[in-house]
Amino acid sequence: MTDSGNFDAAWLPDAAFRAVGARRSLVRGGPDPLKDTVRAELVGVCARFGGEVVRDGDAAELVLDLTGEDSSDEGYTLERRDGVTTVTASGGRGLLYGLFHVVRLGEGAFAGDLASRTHRPALATRMLDHWDNVAVHPVMGQVERGYAGGSLFWADGVARGDLARVRAYGRLLAACGINAVAVNNVNVHATEARLLTDRIGDVAAIAGALRPYGVRTHLSVSFAAPILLGGLPTADPLDPAVRAWWAATTARVYEAVPDFGGYVVKADSEGQPGPFAYGRSHADGANMLAAALEPHGGTVHWRAFVYDHRQDWRDRSTDRARAAYDHFTPLDGEFADNAVLQVKHGPMDFQVREPVSPLIGAMPDTRLAVELQVTQEYTGQQKHACWLGPMWSEVLRFRPDGEVPAGRLADGLVAVPNAGDDRFWTGHPLAQANLYTFGRLAWDPAADPRSVLDEWIALTHPGSPGRLAEGLHAVLDGSWGTYEKYTAPLGVGFMVQPGHHYGPSVDGYEYSPWGTYHFADRDGVGVDRSVATGTGYAGQYAEPWAKLYESPGTCPDELLLFFHHVPYGHVLHSGKTVIQHIYDTHFEGVEEAEEARRVWAGLANLVEPERHARVAERFEEQLRSAREWRDQINSYFLRKSGVPDAHGRTIH
Amino acid sequence: MTDSGNFDAAWLPDAAFRAVGARRSLVRGGPDPLKDTVRAELVGVCARFGGEVVRDGDAAELVLDLTGEDSSDEGYTLERRDGVTTVTASGGRGLLYGLFHVVRLGEGAFAGDLASRTHRPALATRMLDHWDNVAVHPVMGQVERGYAGGSLFWADGVARGDLARVRAYGRLLAACGINAVAVNNVNVHATEARLLTDRIGDVAAIAGALRPYGVRTHLSVSFAAPILLGGLPTADPLDPAVRAWWAATTARVYEAVPDFGGYVVKADSEGQPGPFAYGRSHADGANMLAAALEPHGGTVHWRAFVYDHRQDWRDRSTDRARAAYDHFTPLDGEFADNAVLQVKHGPMDFQVREPVSPLIGAMPDTRLAVELQVTQEYTGQQKHACWLGPMWSEVLRFRPDGEVPAGRLADGLVAVPNAGDDRFWTGHPLAQANLYTFGRLAWDPAADPRSVLDEWIALTHPGSPGRLAEGLHAVLDGSWGTYEKYTAPLGVGFMVQPGHHYGPSVDGYEYSPWGTYHFADRDGVGVDRSVATGTGYAGQYAEPWAKLYESPGTCPDELLLFFHHVPYGHVLHSGKTVIQHIYDTHFEGVEEAEEARRVWAGLANLVEPERHARVAERFEEQLRSAREWRDQINSYFLRKSGVPDAHGRTIH
Repeated sequence: MTDSGNFDAAWLPDAAFRAVGARRSLVRGGPDPLKDTVRAELVGVCARFGGEVVRDGDAAELVLDLTGEDSSDEGYTLERRDGVTTVTASGGRGLLYGLFHVVRLGEGAFAGDLASRTHRPALATRMLDHWDNVAVHPVMGQVERGYAGGSLFWADGVARGDLARVRAYGRLLAACGINAVAVNNVNVHATEARLLTDRIGDVAAIAGALRPYGVRTHLSVSFAAPILLGGLPTADPLDPAVRAWWAATTARVYEAVPDFGGYVVKADSEGQPGPFAYGRSHADGANMLAAALEPHGGTVHWRAFVYDHRQDWRDRSTDRARAAYDHFTPLDGEFADNAVLQVKHGPMDFQVREPVSPLIGAMPDTRLAVELQVTQEYTGQQKHACWLGPMWSEVLRFRPDGEVPAGRLADGLVAVPNAGDDRFWTGHPLAQANLYTFGRLAWDPAADPRSVLDEWIALTHPGSPGRLAEGLHAVLDGSWGTYEKYTAPLGVGFMVQPGHHYGPSVDGYEYSPWGTYHFADRDGVGVDRSVATGTGYAGQYAEPWAKLYESPGTCPDELLLFFHHVPYGHVLHSGKTVIQHIYDTHFEGVEEAEEARRVWAGLANLVEPERHARVAERFEEQLRSAREWRDQINSYFLRKSGVPDAHGRTIH
Repeated sequence: MTDSGNFDAAWLPDAAFRAVGARRSLVRGGPDPLKDTVRAELVGVCARFGGEVVRDGDAAELVLDLTGEDSSDEGYTLERRDGVTTVTASGGRGLLYGLFHVVRLGEGAFAGDLASRTHRPALATRMLDHWDNVAVHPVMGQVERGYAGGSLFWADGVARGDLARVRAYGRLLAACGINAVAVNNVNVHATEARLLTDRIGDVAAIAGALRPYGVRTHLSVSFAAPILLGGLPTADPLDPAVRAWWAATTARVYEAVPDFGGYVVKADSEGQPGPFAYGRSHADGANMLAAALEPHGGTVHWRAFVYDHRQDWRDRSTDRARAAYDHFTPLDGEFADNAVLQVKHGPMDFQVREPVSPLIGAMPDTRLAVELQVTQEYTGQQKHACWLGPMWSEVLRFRPDGEVPAGRLADGLVAVPNAGDDRFWTGHPLAQANLYTFGRLAWDPAADPRSVLDEWIALTHPGSPGRLAEGLHAVLDGSWGTYEKYTAPLGVGFMVQPGHHYGPSVDGYEYSPWGTYHFADRDGVGVDRSVATGTGYAGQYAEPWAKLYESPGTCPDELLLFFHHVPYGHVLHSGKTVIQHIYDTHFEGVEEAEEARRVWAGLANLVEPERHARVAERFEEQLRSAREWRDQINSYFLRKSGVPDAHGRTIH
């Protein structure tokens, strides 16, 4: 059984609770609402698997012990001795996370001894920013960059009202460690702006459904809200009336949602209003909101995604990749304690391959959240299998100064999620693994993503034979690399269809105002971002990276075209020329996708038919699309370079 | 004064009637509703300019004499002697056209003698096919390819209801000789389909407003109407129940609109249903509708725009340009007498330069209508000044067999119009000239378009000094050539932004399923459509064209890349290489647009301020866009060819 209600159980099918549900459990301590959640979980699964939730004093094989009332403490201690498995936590969230830890261990939680070990998330904020619109946007639809049906929260201008589904979502998030959700798009349109004021009740209802699973609710707000909603003539962050409006408005938000998490802001970006209009800095803007939130314990997440989206393609001196660093590093130290700068993991926009943003690590006196994109905008839109765990792990393990990994520099990890009202939550059932992996890497950025995938497989398909796990690893482990192979080569990025970003268009953004170019001509391809002869972007890095990226001789192959414009005959570290690399990877990528499809077909009898069929159908589209990518990219570069494929394969 | 109501008077400002309105006029004969229209026109202008409409027997300087009752006779005889100008017509339409002829002559109609001359339209059908949707289409909007505001007929799913505006429109059409209007888009969506049945009342209301100006109303219908509207299980044109449904439905249409013109059908094209689904031919499909219309005197216009819009760009053997000829020539002689095959003037889709369709003249036993596009889908979307008279004149003067011009092979000229509910009718006020020119060329395909433009100028700006006419000629005469210069070169076509078709995207359609490619590589560009080595399209022409187009040595420069793939170094008849031609024309085109803007600015005191400002604003956009075209095209070909501009101008 994978269903609860009429949607998929994802990584929490009942069967995943078999070991726990068959035991006698004791929950003690409190009072705490999350303790009640834990107890209710146990009561439910015991009813199914024959265990029992006993009273204090009775013998139990599993004890969940809440020892304090500090809800901010998310840690827990797990041990097993004398035949009793114990989870001890000082806060309700820790207790809940401890329970899910026991669930992940399955029978392993009840065999032999387990030395006492305390677990605590590495990052305090593990957040999803839903790009969900309340009103259907004429271009972007109900969910901007959503590939899993409609929104879990909103439909056609009003709250969707399916709070049972929202609660189930919160439960899935808790089980992978996510503790915060922003419920609306960072592009705040007219209807969405009003969530802050007269429609705060809708937000409160969602918050109420997420709260039992320890998930705090955040809101994306418009910087222009004092004008749009407050009737003020300005949104100047230093104007006393503006500040008073935000303070009063925020106080009312907390009346409706006492544990409200805070605001998310996209300002002065892609048409959104911001402090520049008033000659103020982004620190001024963020700090005004931070001041309004501070008395209530809230946080403002201020996005660093600021660049010129009306660039002239003829202007080769401007480099979008430089923008976030150039804009924000001068402001280091100026942001309030409860303001967090939210930085995309790469300098561009969630491409399949980008260097890690040089802004990460460059502002030691500013709180940092790293933003990832779980929704597969540029990585196959949940039609392609593309497990992003390895990519995120690379980002989090990247050491900006050569020493401390990025995952330890941040105190938050944020993602644009991939879930919607689709029956399988994520459109492509295998894309569930991305959401799960995000949560677990936010808890522990040093975790091995392959082990996280093992967890996901075991939870999602409890009790299934090793052959299924092998098959899923075969299909997913290398899927990011496969996608990279048949799309834009060597870190150059984009080459997607404008607007919807699905499928190839090599020149689609080449003469656009978006700052996303590859500069391919008959002789070579790539963007010179060196200090010596290019845009200077490579110089934004600390050593050893600045030096490494500066020269095509030392730049890693996979980022070569991001940092350098090279001739087609340039020889990579791999020993291949750039042009032959392009041909080879594009043929290989399609072959790998074909192999993944074949492997999946072989798993038919190990997966429920509906799930198997959904994935199989997506593999057909993935292959069609992968072949289109292969042929367009290869044809484009053959036509431009005139260099034939060394192996004489068909290029149209 | 240029206004009547709150929209522009276009080519019928009151002042254009000054000469007529100052005279004593007599209207006699009848009864005929169009005679009443003529009389009412005269009464109106006499009230303004001091003339008088007198009774039979009184002395008159202008006599309009209706001598018969044959409303199908559109001819009239005009003469002046003994101080009396006489228009004699056997039908009401002829009388009306005669009146507008006198208006065009102005004072010239009342000076000296005019030898008796009979005027008659060369083409019986002079029709506009409005691509107006009743319900706003989610992608195409209210008017598909409309650049002049909303529809004159429909708004948001219902009839717009401004019948005064529709009547004014009919009057403008009559004044340039147009006698038929199809009131809805050839892409017939669900709401529009119902115009045929339960919403025929909306059509009747429009017909009632157009009828006084001799304009018959036609309807675009869905071939699947028997299924959609009739509840039948099939739309098979040979099925007796289907035929009976169309016969009964058509009879009801004529009850509502007794002078209904007939149906327009786009079948088996770009997703529209058609006879192929039933294994029937397009003649079977057209003839079924012809049979339903025949008892009532109606006509079916059957579009020949049939091609594979899901072509694989990798397949170089399929050629969209061949499609209409290949589909339809085998059916010559099979179409009913009241079925007209409606053929786009070129083989592709209204590009700025195409050869004349080889289907024109290739079906001697089939009635033919030639379709033009007045709405500037691919020619600047009424943001660019682009007077298409010279292009249409070239098409109509083209002699498919080397002898008879195309304009004499057709018995209808049809256009997709450029008018909407915009205050100036056509968005760009100068685009009014295109609509006027279309009507006059449909009346007389042999007319000199420059003389037609003179007429339009004199009517639109009566009494203005020669300097204005000179300026308008300077701005418009060469505007088509200017647009051609800065857009896709040498007949290769497309290179537009996909979807909306405005602005450049050289590779925008290069890897698409639409069959519209240029095949540019590092060595050359163009489509080989020769018989010897290409798709064989050139062989669809009769001589002398087949031979002329077959060889790059004899193919006219302006069509070279339509017919041949040549190296960038290929020397044109002009003496320039292809690549230098590309650079030169793109620089020249922008310079010409700059000059046109300069000339227009100099006319400021000769044109009403609002009209002048609207055009001036459009010239700003035209220039911005023209520069974008110049720079993208030049950069694209410099990057590909590596050949520098001989004059060292800036190419990015």
